[in-house]
Amino acid sequence: MSKPTPISGFPEWTPAQRMIEQYVLDRIRGTFELYGFAPLETRAVEPLDQLLRKGETSKEVYLIRRLQADPDTSPAGDDQLGLHFDLTVPFARYVLENAGKLQFPFRRYQIQKVWRGERPQEGRYREFVQADIDIVDRDTLPAHYEAEMPLVIGDALRSLPIPPVTIQLNNRKICEGFYRGIGLTDPAAALRAVDKLDKIGPAKVAELLAETAGASEAQAKACLALAEISAPDASFADAVRALGVTDPMLDEGVEELVRVMDAAAAHSPGLCVADLRIARGLDYYTGTVYETQLAGYERFGSICSGGRYDDLASSGSVRFPGVGISIGVTRLLGLLFGAGALSVSRDVPTCVLVAVTNSEERAASNAVADALRSRGVPTEVSPSAAKFGKQIRYAERRGIPYVWFPGADGDQVKDIRSGEQVAAAAGEWTPPRADLKPLVS
Amino acid sequence: MSKPTPISGFPEWTPAQRMIEQYVLDRIRGTFELYGFAPLETRAVEPLDQLLRKGETSKEVYLIRRLQADPDTSPAGDDQLGLHFDLTVPFARYVLENAGKLQFPFRRYQIQKVWRGERPQEGRYREFVQADIDIVDRDTLPAHYEAEMPLVIGDALRSLPIPPVTIQLNNRKICEGFYRGIGLTDPAAALRAVDKLDKIGPAKVAELLAETAGASEAQAKACLALAEISAPDASFADAVRALGVTDPMLDEGVEELVRVMDAAAAHSPGLCVADLRIARGLDYYTGTVYETQLAGYERFGSICSGGRYDDLASSGSVRFPGVGISIGVTRLLGLLFGAGALSVSRDVPTCVLVAVTNSEERAASNAVADALRSRGVPTEVSPSAAKFGKQIRYAERRGIPYVWFPGADGDQVKDIRSGEQVAAAAGEWTPPRADLKPLVS
Repeated sequence: MSKPTPISGFPEWTPAQRMIEQYVLDRIRGTFELYGFAPLETRAVEPLDQLLRKGETSKEVYLIRRLQADPDTSPAGDDQLGLHFDLTVPFARYVLENAGKLQFPFRRYQIQKVWRGERPQEGRYREFVQADIDIVDRDTLPAHYEAEMPLVIGDALRSLPIPPVTIQLNNRKICEGFYRGIGLTDPAAALRAVDKLDKIGPAKVAELLAETAGASEAQAKACLALAEISAPDASFADAVRALGVTDPMLDEGVEELVRVMDAAAAHSPGLCVADLRIARGLDYYTGTVYETQLAGYERFGSICSGGRYDDLASSGSVRFPGVGISIGVTRLLGLLFGAGALSVSRDVPTCVLVAVTNSEERAASNAVADALRSRGVPTEVSPSAAKFGKQIRYAERRGIPYVWFPGADGDQVKDIRSGEQVAAAAGEWTPPRADLKPLVS
Repeated sequence: MSKPTPISGFPEWTPAQRMIEQYVLDRIRGTFELYGFAPLETRAVEPLDQLLRKGETSKEVYLIRRLQADPDTSPAGDDQLGLHFDLTVPFARYVLENAGKLQFPFRRYQIQKVWRGERPQEGRYREFVQADIDIVDRDTLPAHYEAEMPLVIGDALRSLPIPPVTIQLNNRKICEGFYRGIGLTDPAAALRAVDKLDKIGPAKVAELLAETAGASEAQAKACLALAEISAPDASFADAVRALGVTDPMLDEGVEELVRVMDAAAAHSPGLCVADLRIARGLDYYTGTVYETQLAGYERFGSICSGGRYDDLASSGSVRFPGVGISIGVTRLLGLLFGAGALSVSRDVPTCVLVAVTNSEERAASNAVADALRSRGVPTEVSPSAAKFGKQIRYAERRGIPYVWFPGADGDQVKDIRSGEQVAAAAGEWTPPRADLKPLVS
């Protein structure tokens, strides 16, 4: 057959990169569990009508169908299945489906692949991994959970060998209340215009505010003044008040964001910034919203985003408000791999290669390997009884640090980086801790 | 919206079951890494022509297409993408695509979901997790790798709290050589007939051998006699020889299987059985084949299967022979969950719930939680400053063993199972090791 080629937008890491990804996922998962989030995995597919509930996403969905399905009898319309494009929609569906069995407030994390039929470009993929946490409650959700999200994410990302991050915070109530307070009647349209600030600049946003939200010149100027407010602490509230707008929802939003900023300052000074230009494209957010910048990679956009939603999941008269945030793991790794900013100390998990003296004595080498593995030392046995030089090169090419030589008069182990070789017994020898597993840096 | 319902064949575990699944996957991965297998993940999709190479599987494939794709310009035929239905076909494709960058022999493990458009039934899913190991080499692959596979799987499965397993072994060369040795000219047809032994019984297999492989009564009887051979050690070879058939390929197969059985006996007495009725449906196996029975669940079939393949991946004149084996993780868990044979000590990772004395002092409770988490203790803060009795019930309902009470005169921690309450400091207190993480049993 001809040589296969990659498929655009469907990244595949090398085994060494996959070791780094696993390390990253283990760290993230470890932090999520430290905060008591329970794991959840949902199926990869959802009914199409569920996937389209959020709006604006229909063009991104991949549908699936059985190759041999009969087009006349196979499901269409509402019964069609598509691959999920995020983990929030499946989670909302899961909560509704299992509400009777779950304990609320329900804290879950979910680390899975998602698929989007987008045109691929740098930092954008058609298949990628997201790591989400959400907390949902029945009927009402206390605001303190909005303060908890950035602390978890801060801990998770700071446990990784990556550049520092800044979490940017805003609260939808601030924007909506402010827009109402200055007399705009369509706050959603104003929000959508301000959301384009980074892309098109203030002059064009002012035009857009006039066109789509019916803003006067003074109103547009006020909207832009609000969006310019940015502070590393609760002092953003003074800057908002200085704009002289009063509105009950605005006051509520400011108060909520002050509490989130105070909690963040107590936990991790410098982690969070109140940045009132952060709008988030999606319609369903109703409180705090989050974006995250990776130092040195700001131009690629947020690597971790989310917010509070009050109306994503509801069933009849029961409502399940929630707050969640999602780390774009593939996006993050893609950026860092592209910059050569992450590496691992070897290409395989193996710490020791046991040499084979001659083919008849492979069983002796197997016994050494068993003894080392039983004490947690990742070990391979040499593929052949070639000359020792060739067996050592097998280890060298993979970065395996130690080669073990079984001997009738006692075994020897060689650190092939230093060349040092010492007598050793498989039931006792332990490598230095730093050599036991591949190191990610 | 109306309450969503499950989709047949797409299982979703509860968070507690997902904790068990993660424990199982961590153990399996840990064993794979102890044997030096490097991790690999391939994309979920493959070109349709790749997926159909193995034959007999076209009806199981799910195709994907973008919802908004233009039917007139969107790809069809060879360019169509489908979800992978196993991890062997993507692995063979990956090896061919990256042969220039890989070190051979290449040992990799791969734990991922796969999808099959089959009719769902007990123990069969449309979406499920497989955990595979494979070793491929360039041009030739030493037979000792066929002996290594069952040892890895034996270690991986015995590290789990599940019933004992028996790995059943055969070698395709034994069957093919034997069938040739007794004068059958279509060994593949004979193998397919014998493969049905468990389903249709010896009398019907004899008829099938006559019909499809042109076997005489004596030849059919000989085939059945071979299939009846089963031994816990290398003595199967004597039973084969007693049938009085000679053929070079038969002898080679017997010799290879003896070596595999000897290696297994040295490593794990009782793990493996030579069972010459094991045929494996797939055409591409050329040496040792494996199936695995879980004690008490034999009627559901093999939970871990594989074999040696010489011709799955080849490019021009270069061939990549390999050997691999695959644990059906979802199948295994589905059986054990269904029988209530696996449980976990609590529903959440949380070890300690920090109570909140009153809303104004949530920051003090957050500080306790931070101190506990910084020393690796999974901790949640109570959702509200309700009466302590209600806060304790929050912990009880989730199985959280400890509730922490911050106090002006010093903190206290209560084991809510025993009711014992002691003074404690968040910077020093550590739970008993058995309570730190949920226990799977």
